[in-house]
Amino acid sequence: MMNEECGVVGIASRNPVSVSIYYALRAIQHRGQESTGISVFDSTLCRIKTHKSMGLVERAFGSRDLDKLKGNIGIGHVRYSTAGGSRIENAQPLTISTQFGEISLAHNGDIVNADALRAGRKKEGWAFTTETDSEVIVRLFAGELSQTKDPVRAMARVMRQISGSYSLTILVGNRLFAVRDPNGIKPLCIGKLPSGSGGAGSGAINGASGGNGGGGYIAASESVSLDLLGAELVMDVQPGEMVEITADGIAGSIIAPGAPRAHCMFEYLYFARDDSVIDGRLAHEVRESIGERLAEEYPVKADMVVPVPDSGRTYAIGYAKRSGIPFDEVLIKNRYIWRTFIMPGQEQRDINVRLKLNPIKGLINGKRIVLVDDSIVRGTTMRRIVNLVRSAGAKEVHVRVGCPPIVSPCYLGIDMHTVDQFIAAGRQIEEVKKEIGTDSLGYISIGSMVKAVGLGNSLCVGCLTGKYPVPPPDNATPRKTKQKCI
Amino acid sequence: MMNEECGVVGIASRNPVSVSIYYALRAIQHRGQESTGISVFDSTLCRIKTHKSMGLVERAFGSRDLDKLKGNIGIGHVRYSTAGGSRIENAQPLTISTQFGEISLAHNGDIVNADALRAGRKKEGWAFTTETDSEVIVRLFAGELSQTKDPVRAMARVMRQISGSYSLTILVGNRLFAVRDPNGIKPLCIGKLPSGSGGAGSGAINGASGGNGGGGYIAASESVSLDLLGAELVMDVQPGEMVEITADGIAGSIIAPGAPRAHCMFEYLYFARDDSVIDGRLAHEVRESIGERLAEEYPVKADMVVPVPDSGRTYAIGYAKRSGIPFDEVLIKNRYIWRTFIMPGQEQRDINVRLKLNPIKGLINGKRIVLVDDSIVRGTTMRRIVNLVRSAGAKEVHVRVGCPPIVSPCYLGIDMHTVDQFIAAGRQIEEVKKEIGTDSLGYISIGSMVKAVGLGNSLCVGCLTGKYPVPPPDNATPRKTKQKCI
Amino acid sequence: MMNEECGVVGIASRNPVSVSIYYALRAIQHRGQESTGISVFDSTLCRIKTHKSMGLVERAFGSRDLDKLKGNIGIGHVRYSTAGGSRIENAQPLTISTQFGEISLAHNGDIVNADALRAGRKKEGWAFTTETDSEVIVRLFAGELSQTKDPVRAMARVMRQISGSYSLTILVGNRLFAVRDPNGIKPLCIGKLPSGSGGAGSGAINGASGGNGGGGYIAASESVSLDLLGAELVMDVQPGEMVEITADGIAGSIIAPGAPRAHCMFEYLYFARDDSVIDGRLAHEVRESIGERLAEEYPVKADMVVPVPDSGRTYAIGYAKRSGIPFDEVLIKNRYIWRTFIMPGQEQRDINVRLKLNPIKGLINGKRIVLVDDSIVRGTTMRRIVNLVRSAGAKEVHVRVGCPPIVSPCYLGIDMHTVDQFIAAGRQIEEVKKEIGTDSLGYISIGSMVKAVGLGNSLCVGCLTGKYPVPPPDNATPRKTKQKCI
Amino acid sequence: MMNEECGVVGIASRNPVSVSIYYALRAIQHRGQESTGISVFDSTLCRIKTHKSMGLVERAFGSRDLDKLKGNIGIGHVRYSTAGGSRIENAQPLTISTQFGEISLAHNGDIVNADALRAGRKKEGWAFTTETDSEVIVRLFAGELSQTKDPVRAMARVMRQISGSYSLTILVGNRLFAVRDPNGIKPLCIGKLPSGSGGAGSGAINGASGGNGGGGYIAASESVSLDLLGAELVMDVQPGEMVEITADGIAGSIIAPGAPRAHCMFEYLYFARDDSVIDGRLAHEVRESIGERLAEEYPVKADMVVPVPDSGRTYAIGYAKRSGIPFDEVLIKNRYIWRTFIMPGQEQRDINVRLKLNPIKGLINGKRIVLVDDSIVRGTTMRRIVNLVRSAGAKEVHVRVGCPPIVSPCYLGIDMHTVDQFIAAGRQIEEVKKEIGTDSLGYISIGSMVKAVGLGNSLCVGCLTGKYPVPPPDNATPRKTKQKCI
Repeated sequence: MMNEECGVVGIASRNPVSVSIYYALRAIQHRGQESTGISVFDSTLCRIKTHKSMGLVERAFGSRDLDKLKGNIGIGHVRYSTAGGSRIENAQPLTISTQFGEISLAHNGDIVNADALRAGRKKEGWAFTTETDSEVIVRLFAGELSQTKDPVRAMARVMRQISGSYSLTILVGNRLFAVRDPNGIKPLCIGKLPSGSGGAGSGAINGASGGNGGGGYIAASESVSLDLLGAELVMDVQPGEMVEITADGIAGSIIAPGAPRAHCMFEYLYFARDDSVIDGRLAHEVRESIGERLAEEYPVKADMVVPVPDSGRTYAIGYAKRSGIPFDEVLIKNRYIWRTFIMPGQEQRDINVRLKLNPIKGLINGKRIVLVDDSIVRGTTMRRIVNLVRSAGAKEVHVRVGCPPIVSPCYLGIDMHTVDQFIAAGRQIEEVKKEIGTDSLGYISIGSMVKAVGLGNSLCVGCLTGKYPVPPPDNATPRKTKQKCI
Repeated sequence: MMNEECGVVGIASRNPVSVSIYYALRAIQHRGQESTGISVFDSTLCRIKTHKSMGLVERAFGSRDLDKLKGNIGIGHVRYSTAGGSRIENAQPLTISTQFGEISLAHNGDIVNADALRAGRKKEGWAFTTETDSEVIVRLFAGELSQTKDPVRAMARVMRQISGSYSLTILVGNRLFAVRDPNGIKPLCIGKLPSGSGGAGSGAINGASGGNGGGGYIAASESVSLDLLGAELVMDVQPGEMVEITADGIAGSIIAPGAPRAHCMFEYLYFARDDSVIDGRLAHEVRESIGERLAEEYPVKADMVVPVPDSGRTYAIGYAKRSGIPFDEVLIKNRYIWRTFIMPGQEQRDINVRLKLNPIKGLINGKRIVLVDDSIVRGTTMRRIVNLVRSAGAKEVHVRVGCPPIVSPCYLGIDMHTVDQFIAAGRQIEEVKKEIGTDSLGYISIGSMVKAVGLGNSLCVGCLTGKYPVPPPDNATPRKTKQKCI
Repeated sequence: MMNEECGVVGIASRNPVSVSIYYALRAIQHRGQESTGISVFDSTLCRIKTHKSMGLVERAFGSRDLDKLKGNIGIGHVRYSTAGGSRIENAQPLTISTQFGEISLAHNGDIVNADALRAGRKKEGWAFTTETDSEVIVRLFAGELSQTKDPVRAMARVMRQISGSYSLTILVGNRLFAVRDPNGIKPLCIGKLPSGSGGAGSGAINGASGGNGGGGYIAASESVSLDLLGAELVMDVQPGEMVEITADGIAGSIIAPGAPRAHCMFEYLYFARDDSVIDGRLAHEVRESIGERLAEEYPVKADMVVPVPDSGRTYAIGYAKRSGIPFDEVLIKNRYIWRTFIMPGQEQRDINVRLKLNPIKGLINGKRIVLVDDSIVRGTTMRRIVNLVRSAGAKEVHVRVGCPPIVSPCYLGIDMHTVDQFIAAGRQIEEVKKEIGTDSLGYISIGSMVKAVGLGNSLCVGCLTGKYPVPPPDNATPRKTKQKCI
Repeated sequence: MMNEECGVVGIASRNPVSVSIYYALRAIQHRGQESTGISVFDSTLCRIKTHKSMGLVERAFGSRDLDKLKGNIGIGHVRYSTAGGSRIENAQPLTISTQFGEISLAHNGDIVNADALRAGRKKEGWAFTTETDSEVIVRLFAGELSQTKDPVRAMARVMRQISGSYSLTILVGNRLFAVRDPNGIKPLCIGKLPSGSGGAGSGAINGASGGNGGGGYIAASESVSLDLLGAELVMDVQPGEMVEITADGIAGSIIAPGAPRAHCMFEYLYFARDDSVIDGRLAHEVRESIGERLAEEYPVKADMVVPVPDSGRTYAIGYAKRSGIPFDEVLIKNRYIWRTFIMPGQEQRDINVRLKLNPIKGLINGKRIVLVDDSIVRGTTMRRIVNLVRSAGAKEVHVRVGCPPIVSPCYLGIDMHTVDQFIAAGRQIEEVKKEIGTDSLGYISIGSMVKAVGLGNSLCVGCLTGKYPVPPPDNATPRKTKQKCI
């Protein structure tokens, strides 16, 4: 299982924004469940106020917390992280104070040369208080700001130094900016909020004064945040662009031009919600189209097209449409499973797969099944599911996968850091098929996937090809700041 | 939204059962999320040990809790309840001590004459320590047991007194029984657990010694508990039957004969998991068949069949199959929403519907949509969803409903106690259509629904017709024990 | 360390009582920290409402909880219990419903023949839902009430059956009673609450409407609850007396006459707060007087009288006064220690003693110390303290103890159930002295202690003599309901 | 009520130190209950590992947490803070990473010119991630370190810049330092830990491998931490001194010489534990001596000397000794009161005083009472206590106070920031007497207090005289970083 590392939001309005940011974050909760935070600029105190907490947005914020975050401009963040760093200290937004006031930053992505930058600055006498990429960015930005006095020029200088993926929302005092890396790897879009009392998101929580209806603009990792607030999708922040957002309008300029577009294809295939539109393409359409193309590339005689719920459903619908084989949901998901991983032992893992997914024997028994999922990473889960379907009496099990074989690590924001975790790395498809125990196995081809996305060469497919839009870090292993032991 | 009131489990094995009961309860977690509990007979202490807790099974039990519940025979319970009674004191199983040892009971259902029975016994000097139906049953049972000395004869006497729905698992000291009411209203099935180390559910949690692999038998509200443990479905407990369950076998007898079968049709349509087999019929098949029949009864020219996720999906698949209209999932569910109801105000409720469900505008815009769901109770949610789909640009919205119009309260275990909550009560379909704001509205007919279930007249359809298998309580309003204020 | 098992409260007023009960319970929090509860009769609902929770009173009740407990008459309880039974199910008050309405009971004490009574009733077909003595009492009471229709006559019958210690506050519907066992073993006093806005306890919590100022009467385990609420001590409930308490007055009658008074001497010596007046005698005075008598019985040449804080302080003040040796506090208590017992290993226990108590070396070094404490049970703590004082350089350590040697178990409400835990059981004083490692050891004599209490033979000194006011249970071992394993 | 702001610890040993630091922190828990943390240098990872948490030390650390903090050298901190800043982000130790590795700092005190320093550095382009003084110190230190490459020279430079009170323990990679400000305002002492298995603190928690017995040295805010671990008090860190601490020894040098000693007299009078020895003087002796001098300065004919528990006890003992008036404890403290302040309203506060303190009427009635406490700040609590004692029937109430009248704010580490909170500021003693409602009022004179402390002019008495050892901040109001709102 892969996991996205964060989602960001920023809103400027004529009314208080904390409740709207809260809702916008809930819409992108799937991008990170470890911690969350909201920062708003409180013009009465002339300060940025922040509330951060571990866990889901709905638990992190009560109506009192939102009430206390008074201000018409602010940013928000949801965070996913790998085990080690699960601490409140790493929660975002990260706020620093400088001679120009406070700066608060929310970041989605991965800075490839963060260690090098950090080391370089340390040599100049800098000290860092966290281990996050976000501190590197915001501190560089503050440094440049003290020279240029201008946020846009400062960020332009920063972007010449940092390499990697980053979609940012930034408060510089009472000004809000949205920034996207030169390749546009991570998504970031902008919407126009409705005005008037009928505006979406206008209600307050528990009678809190928050709410909205004050119009303005929103930046968010995914368009679903806009949908929830009734906002109209205006544009995607362009690769290398910095956009200033106010209650009255938006103003952007490309400050890091010249890099090729390299949108993360995994957003379309797995991370983004089915209903998100990223750089003009609807994830649902991409997935259904891949399903159809899979049916063309890997036809098979079968009785039933069965999705692995919920991730494989849209692919399976496409496959069924094109192939004419009936679609049915005969793997039933238990909706009340949050934790299973705490239990060790092979048998445990088997029962845990079954705890999540139960095959309907009566409908599978004796049937030829086309099992459709979005992707295979380690292959262990798919092997168990195939096993499950076979144990339910399937005559044949044919696996179709919406993502081409993953063979290279990702350094740009996806939690797949080492080669040896990929079942497809260094293996022929035939070998993978055997490992998984399926009668046939069809991965979508890179070409078809690219066509389904419909953005030509504008995709990052580093995890499929090992060719990345930005150079990988020197050591090309999972980064971890180390200090020399003298 | 309706809610089932509880699920029960009972297991006898040659190995410890607490871990197996834990898993069996997780499989039926959908039947109640308020509280849960497990009781096992500890033959070393010669006592019944119980662990109860508020909340989900996965949070209620740690591996230590399960380790402490040592014993090869036990019962379990998950509980749903209406607001007022959300207290640990009401959690089940309920254990009492008598001259014959301890008795522990888990109950799914509703005793219609509980108040009358309670009042009657009070007049004889009895005192009750809880307000639950379960205490009425177990106390009556203990009373009869002291007379008859035999659990089966005692329960037969109890069943002559109590009226209503009840599926029970009972520990009488170290003996386990499963009981189903004379009409068989609530489901209860029995399975044979696998023996040997390869047995499902054999693993222990965190190395706990629990686990299984010791064979034996299980009784559970739904067959999905059996599936999870690798158990084979042996039989449904028959209406009026009491079955003794041991590690070596089962022995049942009909102790309350003569009542007509009246299986709750709502189990097939909404409560039970899609993959449950109840009294021989698979819920998934029933639902898909109803979808097909809906397509026959209410055909319409449209571009897309869209389920209300997750409850309408199987119906929609059936409707799409029969009608030939393409199935697509264009209402996207946010999987991270637990609480929304805490926020008052109309606009809040609107945003909360959208928080849960987002329509994909790009695919809905200009289309004729057939919206399929399992049932309509109050109609408020459906009205909001129709509104949502229209606001996404649908040209037409046609609603198809898998359950016939609900017009009468349920006194037998479903949380629908008052007539005035039903949008279909006292209204013509045409009026409901207007209320909901749809272009056409088709409820499945009772006849077709009954055919789809396939059990003939063996169904309780009281909520559709007002005719119940057992007489409703005297006052025919939500029961609530009251004491006279002198 | 010994621990008292519970404290009770009951209040009737013309104003709501929940806040006053809350305060009254906080005043006797030392009598039990495991769980707490309040029951009030809500005359609008004509029902008894109860809130129970684990832990301290201040954490168990928020202002909302108290607001919800609307009613002008109610009872409360704090509970201590031995490890096994630490569960919310055992928290009090215990409420049952009967033909005459609801009955709620709070109990301090121990029913010696509870098992026998329980067994007897089970033979008649009764079933019990808890394992508490309280259920035995309240169920017997309900049974007798159904015969006599009169609470006083019913309780008189109950008191002829139960044997042991019990101070009770009882709600019978909207009537409040206070009851004390025939020997008056556990304390229970009655006070008159102030009327008018200036009344103590009149304030509400967080603006809650609770409060008081409505006059009325209170029953409580210790007079400190009365002090806190500004109530005037009116009387002690007499041994064998049942008192009805209303907002307007009190009316008592001796319903179990003829037993000799046997007030628990341990209340005076250890359990009760220093400022409590029990049966006319102030604990502080008793303790100081014992200290003085100790100085007479066991004079010694020394430089300093040092209390073991906080329990030995008042004794030490008395000893210092009479002996003329200067009093000083040179064992300093760390006020932030709640848990230490979780850490195993001998060295751990040593550091844990020091964590709680630090000797001031500079003042102890080279001095002859008289160390004064209230009592010695196991002797382990005292041995460690003596060791501590010696390690600080004391030239001599002389121990003086305010309670005569404890040699027999208590079956009447104190957590000392087995003989082998007493260091003084079966040992000469000289041996105990060696065990503890002190230069001299003086226990107050029984005679002097009795004189200091000043109530003549009206004391229970069972733990000192093995002669109890009521016969001990048959097995004379820690009671534990067991069921036969057939 | 005043509150100390923090306590620090540092330990170097040949064995793991986390458990020893844990105990050392528990010994000084009274210096701060808001948050706590421990940092150790893990030589395997070559990194500093930190665990921080809100709340008491005993709740913040489980045995697992301590086990994870592997390392033979480390620091710890307990923090008190004023309301606003109660957040985990402000918990200490604060760790930063630099070119020379990681640096972790624990700080007790207040940097008077922190805002100015912060502003100055911001102008140079620095950015700060917290609002704590500690970040100012550690960042300046890191900056100087990058120039000097030597911790001692770096700290000497820092000390020329910062002004205020500071006792520090610092990890610079795997080196431990203890630093005290040039005036020695806050205490900091050094002890030698015992070697061998018999060493105090050698036990592990729950079998954790931590423990000690490995000898080495400890720095701590108070000597009670040394006592608990069986360490021998070696020296106080001298004003302006920096001491390097290793497992094998200590090496200090005065790096900020020339400032007059100005030990906070409040440590002796209130903050430090009674059993602490600070700069050679035992708090208990100082307090008892002040009590005696109070008896000389303000003799009175009375029946009883009564301490306000627990803070006035030692003073009262001294007063009683010298005056010959009997000492008695007749104000009884409820040991289970943690929160009372949440309840608004005057009457509430009255009941809350009584909740904490109950006067024994029977012993006070008709008596002339000398009430002794350590200090009076606002006077509100003392007025309520006097009132309490009068309402118990005291014929006369004479108040004696161990601290001279407080009339000036403290900028050096004590939570008394504004003049208007002091009852003695701008009032004659006679007026204060009337305010408090006492028959006579005697504050110890500054001269006598100074004599009792016994360190001559080496005291900071700024709060008594308005003359501080370091210049107060420019605005001379409670500091609060503000950013200009453009």
